[in-house]
Amino acid sequence: MRKVNFLIFIILSLAVVPGYTQKVFHYVDPFIGTEGEGNVFPGAALPFGMVKLGPDCKGHSNSGYISGGQIEGFSHTHVSGTGGGAKYGNIMVSPQVGEINFVNESSPFSHEFASAGYYTAFLDKPKVKAELTVADKVGFHQYTFPPSTASSILIDAGHFLFFGHQWGEAQELVGSEVRVLSDTEVEGYNRVRHGWNFGDAYTVFFYAKLDKKAAKILTWKGERRYTDQWVQPDSGEKTGAAFTFETKADEQIRVKVGISFISTAKARENLESNLPHWDFEQTKNEAADRWNSLLSKIEISGSETQKKVFYTSMYHAYLMPVERNGENPKWTSGAPHYDDFYAIWDTYRTPHPLMTILTPDRQVDMINALLDIYQHEGYMPDARSGNDNGRTQGGSDADILIYDAYAKGLKGIDYELALESMIKNATVAPGDDERKEGRGGLADYNKLGYISTDYERAGSRTLEFAYCDFALANMAKALGRDDLYQKYIKGAGNWKNLWDSEYESHGVRGFIMPKRANGQWHKDLSVQHRAADGGEVELFDEFTFGYWEAFFYESNSWEYSLFVPHDVEGLMRACGGREAFVHRLDTFFNNNFFQVSNEPGFLTPYLYSWAGRQDKTAHRIREILNNNYHAHRAGIPGNDDSGSMGAWYVFNSMGFYPNAGQNVYLIGSPLFEHTTIHLPNGNSFDIEAKKLSDRNIYVQSATLNGVSLDKAWFQHENIANGGKLILFMGSKPTDWGSTSPPPSLTK
Amino acid sequence: MRKVNFLIFIILSLAVVPGYTQKVFHYVDPFIGTEGEGNVFPGAALPFGMVKLGPDCKGHSNSGYISGGQIEGFSHTHVSGTGGGAKYGNIMVSPQVGEINFVNESSPFSHEFASAGYYTAFLDKPKVKAELTVADKVGFHQYTFPPSTASSILIDAGHFLFFGHQWGEAQELVGSEVRVLSDTEVEGYNRVRHGWNFGDAYTVFFYAKLDKKAAKILTWKGERRYTDQWVQPDSGEKTGAAFTFETKADEQIRVKVGISFISTAKARENLESNLPHWDFEQTKNEAADRWNSLLSKIEISGSETQKKVFYTSMYHAYLMPVERNGENPKWTSGAPHYDDFYAIWDTYRTPHPLMTILTPDRQVDMINALLDIYQHEGYMPDARSGNDNGRTQGGSDADILIYDAYAKGLKGIDYELALESMIKNATVAPGDDERKEGRGGLADYNKLGYISTDYERAGSRTLEFAYCDFALANMAKALGRDDLYQKYIKGAGNWKNLWDSEYESHGVRGFIMPKRANGQWHKDLSVQHRAADGGEVELFDEFTFGYWEAFFYESNSWEYSLFVPHDVEGLMRACGGREAFVHRLDTFFNNNFFQVSNEPGFLTPYLYSWAGRQDKTAHRIREILNNNYHAHRAGIPGNDDSGSMGAWYVFNSMGFYPNAGQNVYLIGSPLFEHTTIHLPNGNSFDIEAKKLSDRNIYVQSATLNGVSLDKAWFQHENIANGGKLILFMGSKPTDWGSTSPPPSLTK
Repeated sequence: MRKVNFLIFIILSLAVVPGYTQKVFHYVDPFIGTEGEGNVFPGAALPFGMVKLGPDCKGHSNSGYISGGQIEGFSHTHVSGTGGGAKYGNIMVSPQVGEINFVNESSPFSHEFASAGYYTAFLDKPKVKAELTVADKVGFHQYTFPPSTASSILIDAGHFLFFGHQWGEAQELVGSEVRVLSDTEVEGYNRVRHGWNFGDAYTVFFYAKLDKKAAKILTWKGERRYTDQWVQPDSGEKTGAAFTFETKADEQIRVKVGISFISTAKARENLESNLPHWDFEQTKNEAADRWNSLLSKIEISGSETQKKVFYTSMYHAYLMPVERNGENPKWTSGAPHYDDFYAIWDTYRTPHPLMTILTPDRQVDMINALLDIYQHEGYMPDARSGNDNGRTQGGSDADILIYDAYAKGLKGIDYELALESMIKNATVAPGDDERKEGRGGLADYNKLGYISTDYERAGSRTLEFAYCDFALANMAKALGRDDLYQKYIKGAGNWKNLWDSEYESHGVRGFIMPKRANGQWHKDLSVQHRAADGGEVELFDEFTFGYWEAFFYESNSWEYSLFVPHDVEGLMRACGGREAFVHRLDTFFNNNFFQVSNEPGFLTPYLYSWAGRQDKTAHRIREILNNNYHAHRAGIPGNDDSGSMGAWYVFNSMGFYPNAGQNVYLIGSPLFEHTTIHLPNGNSFDIEAKKLSDRNIYVQSATLNGVSLDKAWFQHENIANGGKLILFMGSKPTDWGSTSPPPSLTK
Repeated sequence: MRKVNFLIFIILSLAVVPGYTQKVFHYVDPFIGTEGEGNVFPGAALPFGMVKLGPDCKGHSNSGYISGGQIEGFSHTHVSGTGGGAKYGNIMVSPQVGEINFVNESSPFSHEFASAGYYTAFLDKPKVKAELTVADKVGFHQYTFPPSTASSILIDAGHFLFFGHQWGEAQELVGSEVRVLSDTEVEGYNRVRHGWNFGDAYTVFFYAKLDKKAAKILTWKGERRYTDQWVQPDSGEKTGAAFTFETKADEQIRVKVGISFISTAKARENLESNLPHWDFEQTKNEAADRWNSLLSKIEISGSETQKKVFYTSMYHAYLMPVERNGENPKWTSGAPHYDDFYAIWDTYRTPHPLMTILTPDRQVDMINALLDIYQHEGYMPDARSGNDNGRTQGGSDADILIYDAYAKGLKGIDYELALESMIKNATVAPGDDERKEGRGGLADYNKLGYISTDYERAGSRTLEFAYCDFALANMAKALGRDDLYQKYIKGAGNWKNLWDSEYESHGVRGFIMPKRANGQWHKDLSVQHRAADGGEVELFDEFTFGYWEAFFYESNSWEYSLFVPHDVEGLMRACGGREAFVHRLDTFFNNNFFQVSNEPGFLTPYLYSWAGRQDKTAHRIREILNNNYHAHRAGIPGNDDSGSMGAWYVFNSMGFYPNAGQNVYLIGSPLFEHTTIHLPNGNSFDIEAKKLSDRNIYVQSATLNGVSLDKAWFQHENIANGGKLILFMGSKPTDWGSTSPPPSLTK
């Protein structure tokens, strides 16, 4: 019997291998972005996957992983690409040999490999090969042990990522519990609060099953060990259970861990329905297939290295948010449930527009999940994790997602309800914790038309609220509410209220600068302001780059003064007209003030196109792509931010870029001769870049579906209806696209 | 063996009975207040008891119980004396005979009896005698069945009180789960959200054990029944389990149900540690003993009927809040944990002052619990239930509790932290849901010195905030913060900003009336106001009595215009001086504008004393006590409000009354010749009313510890140090106490 199975395995393996290598998921290298500041999660995950099973390394980090570090064990919940205090890292499994180490003493590791849905490493200390894969709500572990009379698998219900305490953003234990059910089963939970988003307590329940009976079982609570108690009820301490066996050389022990945010019985049900068998390879292959079917929605003609960067970028864009249908412990409703919007400030610009093209049903589900949160908790989140809203970085940017969906024709959303939720953002201040949700500083904004230096993040909030007002105005107009359109389209111009036309830097005039509530510019930059809502003293000049307490959130005035995505013509006028604007952009890029690692500047290379200089856009885009994205561990510029950096690459390498929140895509300069996007409606959108080379980066002319295209932008229906965009490339800059600049609120 | 046990039982019963009847707990009649609007909980409970095991009747109600109704079953969590939408009613046990009824078809009942810690009724339909008692975190059921081959005990994990949907205040199911562990054991939980306080989801876990093995077990989910599945994982539906037996005539089956807000394992641990045996009588007696030891802290000399009313009132005052140490699922800390502050607006006036005298350690614990909530969630609650703050009726009245504690010398509270929490209330508006916590309408209050008609509850909030400011000012002063004292003592005068000295009613001038934000009185009473924060249109004249949307919360201007407990002298001046004030009070009482059922008027009968007319206070108090409190089911005036009505009776019947938030007790007219309060420090405070009779209700003179007492008030140290107050009573009104009126902010 065993031999027969083995034979079949060999045959199947041989049969599958050739196809396998041709599949695009093979280009995913989950380690890209694990060094530098990428903070991506390299473990096993599915698209939108609730379970992210991966290594947690000594010292902890946002993703759990530290490249070249030492592994404590493998836990089931993670986020990817984030900064600040860590979230999750719940329910850790740790293989050990010899005396059990309860404090998760870590082990160096080697022979590391990961692919979409799979992770493996050899733990040098216990000499155990660890392999991980996932089904929907289940983590699947396979450990290959050395010969030992005391091989153990620890299930640590008290573990969580503890990182970011220096900023007061660390998670805190609320409690944990284990209950050993048999010599192969244990269940329990981990309850944790806070972390980056300062969320309320969330509970991760688990049910774990081993495929080998333990010879010895013990449980623990805090520092106490028990060989006679199989249950450790929650008393606010860390708990866990260890299963000990005798193992032969290369003996494999598998552990399946069902995860739930509802209960242990639900965790068990998740395990039994999602992963009823013990076939690790099958599960691994199914995970790869899931990724492959998603990733193969885009075909590109690039080099192997380009494909590696491209598909890994795309992979990263689909790690978050996570789908949690049936796993909402706070209310029941018919709506889809998603968590780990982390944060929409990051993701509305690139991952969501990518999903809108490739997986629009998912985008609809996510917006409906946001509206469901609004209906049950009062506000859509800007960020949400662990079942709780928390931390609005800039604007109420879910507004942008909504109007983006409407403008691109997505069906299945109650836009009347959506409008209501946007009005709530625009009219009702969130109160005590103005970082939690809604629009902080709203009292100022709605009274003065800008946020004064009495509030933190006055600059970035004012600019983002103006763009949110633009989305709200257009949503209202679409629903026949012209009264509201008139009101909020005025707000869309509020960025001008912080435009100090006298402020000068590097020969450029006009910057978004701090203004007092009395209407006077806050000129005394040496004294600087203290935000009324708890902020620290922060300096601000045009280069000051801050965090929560600053005038700009994670940005500076050089960057944010170019953030008026709905009225670039208006911005151009404020900057002194077309030539001054182009000069300003040149100054910005030539002095390396541009940071591709930061979302507020994502669109900036395209601003040239409004000034009729698409050639300069092409030049900048090519330069950024070549200099900042690489097929190695430090290959991502800055935090990946839930795939925001990745999706930026995906769009730009294909040769176009969304002005998120509007039905417009701007043409840049593609990296690939051929790109085909397979749409879920059965249509395809092809992009062909003729004569493309490293020198031929400039668009000479273009056709869309065979008709000459004179403008450097197109619309969603051009993609959705299927079609073909041909760009004729050359080495010389041209004035292609200059006659019909992209849309702008004012002309 | 059985006979011997029975003999012992007889002997013990005979031995115990004589003592039993002499014990004061025997005077508790849990049915007093179950008819009319009392809404008290008549089931089995302990002082501050987390588990309140009692009947839930068809149609549901705030307490679960409906006098003369039909019983669905017996659930473990309840509140007592509340109004609005119901809370709790989780984990219901229902004895049935014959075909199982899963929809909790109710049964008429008879032979009902209840005492402190015990409830029994005969269910007419199944012919089952039900008996209930409680240990700390355990409900203990004893059912006496008729002969049947199909007697069942249902454990309904999906049940909760559904009442108040007409006001949008009903609870909503989030989920439930059952897991049968053996033929005598089942565990699971019920997860519910909302209810009166609009709280987030809370989860009540249970572990139940029966003392008879089931012959047949089934489980259910929604409408589906399962004889082959012992586990029903949570999928957002109602679940339960039924244990079926053959029973002989009068066969008793006992069920112990451990309850926890943490987990099922904790629920089991609670059961095993709190109630390791099956002796129902022992448990019942221990519960009675707990009550007796609490209730016997006060000895009175009244009639049997008076004792019944008195001890039942005292009993009601100790049903809430509930102690939940070790049962907080939201964070861990060293602080005590209490829930069901419901609401402090009700309870700061009488139950908490009573606890401060009788059980000061508990009062300290509760304040520390409030501060712990502030530290972890941002605000102390005014109301809290099901682990969530929700619904501030008037002021941020936890402020009053804190200064009351300080003024009465309670130790073990971090008053610096307390001051910080009070300042938070006074400075940071709660935001979106201004009913949730903190001070709604704060923007107006801090800017205008009153709350304008732009906000709901503008009148009651302004008055209560002024009193809260008084507490805050004094707390600050006590901690050496004279700057803050100066700031907030100004706020204590803010009631004057809504005092319309021209408004006249029944010959009385000067009323708290609505004012617009522009400073003008809102004279147009026919058009009326619409509160900006979502309220309905509400009429207001001096009699308008409203709810959330009104100018006054659950009160009117006649009542609230006399609510200035910190500056009665100032109020008297505003009313036109001493004579006009007495005339106003006479008008108020003679026209029956006074409602003892409503907390804002609780102090009003004592206001005469500031005008030197303690005799009129005596007259009114006697009248109110005699006309409104009775030893029958409708014996409580209005909702008991977590014992607020009860504690009002306790104080006034003893002959004194606290001006809560200040170190002063006002002397009224006692009902009893002798009262002795046994203090936890070993001291006793005696009150003797010499020559007391139904006619001799007026104090002629008094001594305190043998020294003549010329003022109609005393202070906390007079009680705490022990001593004796002798009141010499007579039938003629006197001017006793007129020379030294009680304290007042201004003279």
